[in-house]
Amino acid sequence: MADTVTFLVDPLPTDASPQFLESSFREVEPGADALAVNDLAPHRGDGVFETLAIIDGHPQEVEPHLARLVNSARLCELPEPNLDQWRLIITRAAERVPAQGEFALKLALSRGIEPGPKPTGWVHVTPGVDFTAARRRGIRVITLDRGVAHGVGDRAPWLLLGAKTLSYAGNMAALREAKRRGADDAIYISSDGYVLEGPTSSVIVRMGDQFVTPPPAAGILHGTTQRSVFAHLEATGRTAEYRDLTVDDLRAADAAWLVSSVRMAAPIVELDGATLPLDAETTAALNAYLLSPRD
Amino acid sequence: MADTVTFLVDPLPTDASPQFLESSFREVEPGADALAVNDLAPHRGDGVFETLAIIDGHPQEVEPHLARLVNSARLCELPEPNLDQWRLIITRAAERVPAQGEFALKLALSRGIEPGPKPTGWVHVTPGVDFTAARRRGIRVITLDRGVAHGVGDRAPWLLLGAKTLSYAGNMAALREAKRRGADDAIYISSDGYVLEGPTSSVIVRMGDQFVTPPPAAGILHGTTQRSVFAHLEATGRTAEYRDLTVDDLRAADAAWLVSSVRMAAPIVELDGATLPLDAETTAALNAYLLSPRD
Repeated sequence: MADTVTFLVDPLPTDASPQFLESSFREVEPGADALAVNDLAPHRGDGVFETLAIIDGHPQEVEPHLARLVNSARLCELPEPNLDQWRLIITRAAERVPAQGEFALKLALSRGIEPGPKPTGWVHVTPGVDFTAARRRGIRVITLDRGVAHGVGDRAPWLLLGAKTLSYAGNMAALREAKRRGADDAIYISSDGYVLEGPTSSVIVRMGDQFVTPPPAAGILHGTTQRSVFAHLEATGRTAEYRDLTVDDLRAADAAWLVSSVRMAAPIVELDGATLPLDAETTAALNAYLLSPRD
Repeated sequence: MADTVTFLVDPLPTDASPQFLESSFREVEPGADALAVNDLAPHRGDGVFETLAIIDGHPQEVEPHLARLVNSARLCELPEPNLDQWRLIITRAAERVPAQGEFALKLALSRGIEPGPKPTGWVHVTPGVDFTAARRRGIRVITLDRGVAHGVGDRAPWLLLGAKTLSYAGNMAALREAKRRGADDAIYISSDGYVLEGPTSSVIVRMGDQFVTPPPAAGILHGTTQRSVFAHLEATGRTAEYRDLTVDDLRAADAAWLVSSVRMAAPIVELDGATLPLDAETTAALNAYLLSPRD
């Protein structure tokens, strides 16, 4: 058992024989020197990743995360990931951490040593942060202009807006800007006033009995946790739909959340300094669901 | 002497004693495992970099590159680089490669192991590609929508548009899009129709006797090679100025170049499939200048 686990991965082609899977990765000491400086991940932020939770030994939503990894790889013209390989590695990583508690697993697929593409990969598991306060008492959020118009991703796929790439310097800068303004997180707004997503999360609002999230075609990542929440809401008789949301819609929401794979559902209690209602009952139900084993 | 040289750098604070400079970096085998997977460079593309040429043993424009590194670090809220340290490392790297020929030196400053900021750094020197054809016969270029409006960088600094960050997945995707369309390179256009920059270069056009480049306030990097070219043009009695350029201006140019630190001045001979005039005389003069020792 270890709190932090690192595997280095030799990504296999999709047609690799199953016999090669177990020998296609190896554990190294966390913090070990692992990547060359001319690997395109550090060199260019040129790769894709997923982050998922391991809850009491169970990796959450593995298939949706791997489906998005395949989509990100396609958008970035990386070789198609071998999902049997990644499934096995996730399983092995989950076996290496304690059977109780929350952990965050990041898996990454780089274009490899310049000029690529002979991918390199890794998995890194770390102990979960205590998000109890964020999940119960909520978070303060600011809106930030993302500079791009709603829907630009479809007509400019080279912007990679739908891909979860390793180029997250801007996302990290947005989170620092939020902290600087005394907030906990941020929501990107399109240049024409539509709600997009958080730097590392999806936005869900409740308007009356209806739950709404912006459509992926707005130029955002399709959130795995948002999809899981929507499936749960529909299974419990609620209405959930994809629809464009303006900033005014967000300000007028009956409740709103940032949802993500590790922090789960964080209710937004303050938006640009104005109070938003905290729907404690729904929030508790969502987090109970999100913290239960999900596939 | 080596063709490829890698130094790992322990970035020092600006007030470090000079006695620590020589022991603050070490050479490793190129391709050696050097970075942890939770270093924020591979993890998030969260760091800044510069690329400069070494021509016949001489590192070009070291001070302008270091000045931009300082600016990038400031925009990304990284600790201020110790320039004496970087000057020394660049000198040592240049001494390690053959005294004849062209080499490309990349230096990078990462936010360090998550959560940072205890920066890590490296220098990686590689043999120059033969750019003779691009410099003489020119390149075919396409325009690509960057999705953002002209000038958005000033009102949304969290987009890091003026910082040269390691998050270059989008820039690499733009170059792939150009190749897919049978071109050599790309020029980003703002959503409101202004010329911005290439994914790894600056745009300079000649209109009559005047040389023009878009201003950094458009939301682009201030090009070190563009600045060097402008200084040379002015020193030789030409007129060079910063001015907003529309796509139509670019199409109507008497000549146009993409300039960058390693490829130098590449004349644009085709723009979105239409021929642009090749100004062979100016091109030759610019490259003769750019390939001469510059500080």
